Amino acid sequence: MKSPLAHTLCFALATLLHTMPVYAGPTVILLIGDGMDEQQLTIARNYLHGASGRLAVDALPVRSSVQVLTVAEKDPKRSIYVADSANSATAMATGNITSRGRIATSAGTDRDLETIVSIAHRAGLRTGLVTTSSVTDATPASFATHISHRSCEDPTRMQSYEVAGDFVVDCSQDLQSHGGPGSIAEQLARSPLDLILGGGRGHFEAAIDSQESPLAIAARNGFDVFSSPAELVAGEGVNRRIGLFAERHLPVRWHGEQGRIAEKPQPSLLNYAYRYFGSVKQPQAFQCEDNPNYGDTPSLKAMTDTALDQLHNDRGFFLMVESASIDKRSHQRDPCGQIGEVAQLMEALQSALAYAEKNPETLVLVTADHGQAAQLVPDESIFAAYGVPIFTPGNIARLQTPEGSIMAINYATNQFDVEEHTGVQVPLFANDVAAGKIPPLLFQHEIFGLMRDHLGI
Amino acid sequence: MKSPLAHTLCFALATLLHTMPVYAGPTVILLIGDGMDEQQLTIARNYLHGASGRLAVDALPVRSSVQVLTVAEKDPKRSIYVADSANSATAMATGNITSRGRIATSAGTDRDLETIVSIAHRAGLRTGLVTTSSVTDATPASFATHISHRSCEDPTRMQSYEVAGDFVVDCSQDLQSHGGPGSIAEQLARSPLDLILGGGRGHFEAAIDSQESPLAIAARNGFDVFSSPAELVAGEGVNRRIGLFAERHLPVRWHGEQGRIAEKPQPSLLNYAYRYFGSVKQPQAFQCEDNPNYGDTPSLKAMTDTALDQLHNDRGFFLMVESASIDKRSHQRDPCGQIGEVAQLMEALQSALAYAEKNPETLVLVTADHGQAAQLVPDESIFAAYGVPIFTPGNIARLQTPEGSIMAINYATNQFDVEEHTGVQVPLFANDVAAGKIPPLLFQHEIFGLMRDHLGI
Ligand SMILES: [Zn+2]
Ligand SMILES: [Zn+2]
Repeated sequence: MKSPLAHTLCFALATLLHTMPVYAGPTVILLIGDGMDEQQLTIARNYLHGASGRLAVDALPVRSSVQVLTVAEKDPKRSIYVADSANSATAMATGNITSRGRIATSAGTDRDLETIVSIAHRAGLRTGLVTTSSVTDATPASFATHISHRSCEDPTRMQSYEVAGDFVVDCSQDLQSHGGPGSIAEQLARSPLDLILGGGRGHFEAAIDSQESPLAIAARNGFDVFSSPAELVAGEGVNRRIGLFAERHLPVRWHGEQGRIAEKPQPSLLNYAYRYFGSVKQPQAFQCEDNPNYGDTPSLKAMTDTALDQLHNDRGFFLMVESASIDKRSHQRDPCGQIGEVAQLMEALQSALAYAEKNPETLVLVTADHGQAAQLVPDESIFAAYGVPIFTPGNIARLQTPEGSIMAINYATNQFDVEEHTGVQVPLFANDVAAGKIPPLLFQHEIFGLMRDHLGI
Repeated sequence: MKSPLAHTLCFALATLLHTMPVYAGPTVILLIGDGMDEQQLTIARNYLHGASGRLAVDALPVRSSVQVLTVAEKDPKRSIYVADSANSATAMATGNITSRGRIATSAGTDRDLETIVSIAHRAGLRTGLVTTSSVTDATPASFATHISHRSCEDPTRMQSYEVAGDFVVDCSQDLQSHGGPGSIAEQLARSPLDLILGGGRGHFEAAIDSQESPLAIAARNGFDVFSSPAELVAGEGVNRRIGLFAERHLPVRWHGEQGRIAEKPQPSLLNYAYRYFGSVKQPQAFQCEDNPNYGDTPSLKAMTDTALDQLHNDRGFFLMVESASIDKRSHQRDPCGQIGEVAQLMEALQSALAYAEKNPETLVLVTADHGQAAQLVPDESIFAAYGVPIFTPGNIARLQTPEGSIMAINYATNQFDVEEHTGVQVPLFANDVAAGKIPPLLFQHEIFGLMRDHLGI
């Protein structure tokens, strides 16, 4: 029989263990603002908080800059100075530099590149992907699948898939019938991920003839697949899950009044004769408002909160959270769309930071994958005093900011339907867990090493 | 009589004191790349060192971002989201937010704002300004003069000065004959600065009728004024000096082959009918080469070395070093001009860092005053596979980089002769002296406080 003292001590110990929270082991939360370069941050700050305000990300103690590297598919030693989301996400997910369009595969040689999700899973960590795009889109795909082209999102898009016009993509070497791993949706459905949240239901339902859809594959692989935001809660001992809340990408939170985006200035007839003559009518200023199509779409923060609940465990986890439509709306010259999606990332960041507060081994990283077209330009030209018509050759949006001024956003990288990316170095922020560990400039593929080192895998 | 031991000790001490270098007291070297935003850094890095290379500034241990604030002249409570060099240099030099065009004076009220140069001088520190522009240009002017408009550079430009077309500037309230401090050149000539190096000889020679020129005022105020680069050496006990090496701005180091800058793509006739039809001829790629007009112009590094020699003293000093034409050449759509001037700033930085190595109380800061138009865009559109003509609505330069690829730089903020600035947040770098003292985001006028605190004045 135990002594009274031993009994008391045992009781105290048991009480302590029971009330002690379970701290997560080494954990990485990587938040990606797609296309969220310094211009996007300034534009969002000015609109959301005023020029003297601060974004949530401005409070992070570590700031660095990331040089994005891309190579040519046909000559992988040659630098290409502007990335897309496929090769830039591949850099972060695998530590490798590749060519545009590639998902965790090598330029020229089409070798599969191991991802942080595979490595983390093998080491016994939970893993999750959260995005506002289709979960089959380039950024999430690069963290858990391998395919030669980002367009091969589902079984119906694998062979001579006509993306647009003459643009035909072929991933037939990756077809399951050819011994390959199948489309992105099929690979996700077979992945070891614990949680996948975002859009892309259509891609999971797509199937060729009587073949199994990615949805069916996912169910067979042990995933609960759901699409109601009401199910976006993590209970005890919840199963591995895929939540798909839209056919394709999730609708964005904000749009411009009457759906307005950037427009072309209208020079007077005389101005066509000579550019110093005549006048110009700039588009009218407008405000941002709620997107009526948003409906009950779960916010990025709601999805992130669920992911943090579900992935939390004493061993640690890897979670990637993407605000995808900062990029997509910039392509469409839609500043309100962009700003609302930066706001979404900032809210998700606050959830991540609150989690890190309670779980001190949590590394929180915030970065962008590449630059975007939008430029904050003077609403009144800095040469206005010259008294001649001065206006963008592209499209411009004049936003009426809540602090009572006008902010002009220029989109002029091309005359096509969709703007280009830019090759600018992009920001990287981290919480204090990274203090002293991140140099002021790093190369994008080095983010992989940072995450791996922190996870100890 | 002293004992032999005391004698020996005294001798040893005297020898030690004699051979010990004089360390400078608290010193600030502020390097400004005019318009040197993140795009400019990436463009320069890719060209000068290759995409995987590093600029000198990338080695600095502290990196932050600076939100640039500007207000409306007629309503100083209203934010204007894009600065010029006058109001942004005023922010750094005085700690105040003002309106575009103003030199160390307040928006709306035209009050003189005390500069870091005045405060440092009063505290007994030496002070110097080094720039590749005319020393009367907005950036250097804001550190030591006060005037309502940046265009009032010399006595002939004070009253109803026609800058261009209908653009007339009047600083008559600042005329000496009206009890004011006179033009920028006159104020510099009367300033307490120890050293002023750059261009602007023409402004110092300009005089109305029989009135004293700024050159004569400077001589009377104790300055040696010189213009030969051969005199750019600092001997022992050298006098206060003004070195003016060009009539106006110094020529830039580099230009494009055959003087080429960005050009308009040439769409085929069919493309005018419908933008998906026809084809487009992009401008031919070119390389950067030495600017034949550069001649024996002193480099920014040579001027900085002289300034460090001359200002060095055991009490400490304040030195501002500006690479001005990163901005000026970007306005002109001249990527080679820009890149050469970023290279100049990096060389001057290396001199500043070498000085700081020997003088450990030296704070080295590198920043930009505002963003610029240039954008690194894909040489092959990210939508090239669509097979339709895609090209910038503005001007584009295709640079043949030394590492064997093509880097495309887009200029499309307006259709005027000169591009706009942008409102993007700009980078700030510092040496280890600032470690832990600079938050990841600061407002531009807070740079003034950082410098003042470091100097202890
Ligand atoms: Zn994109
Ligand atoms: Zn400028």
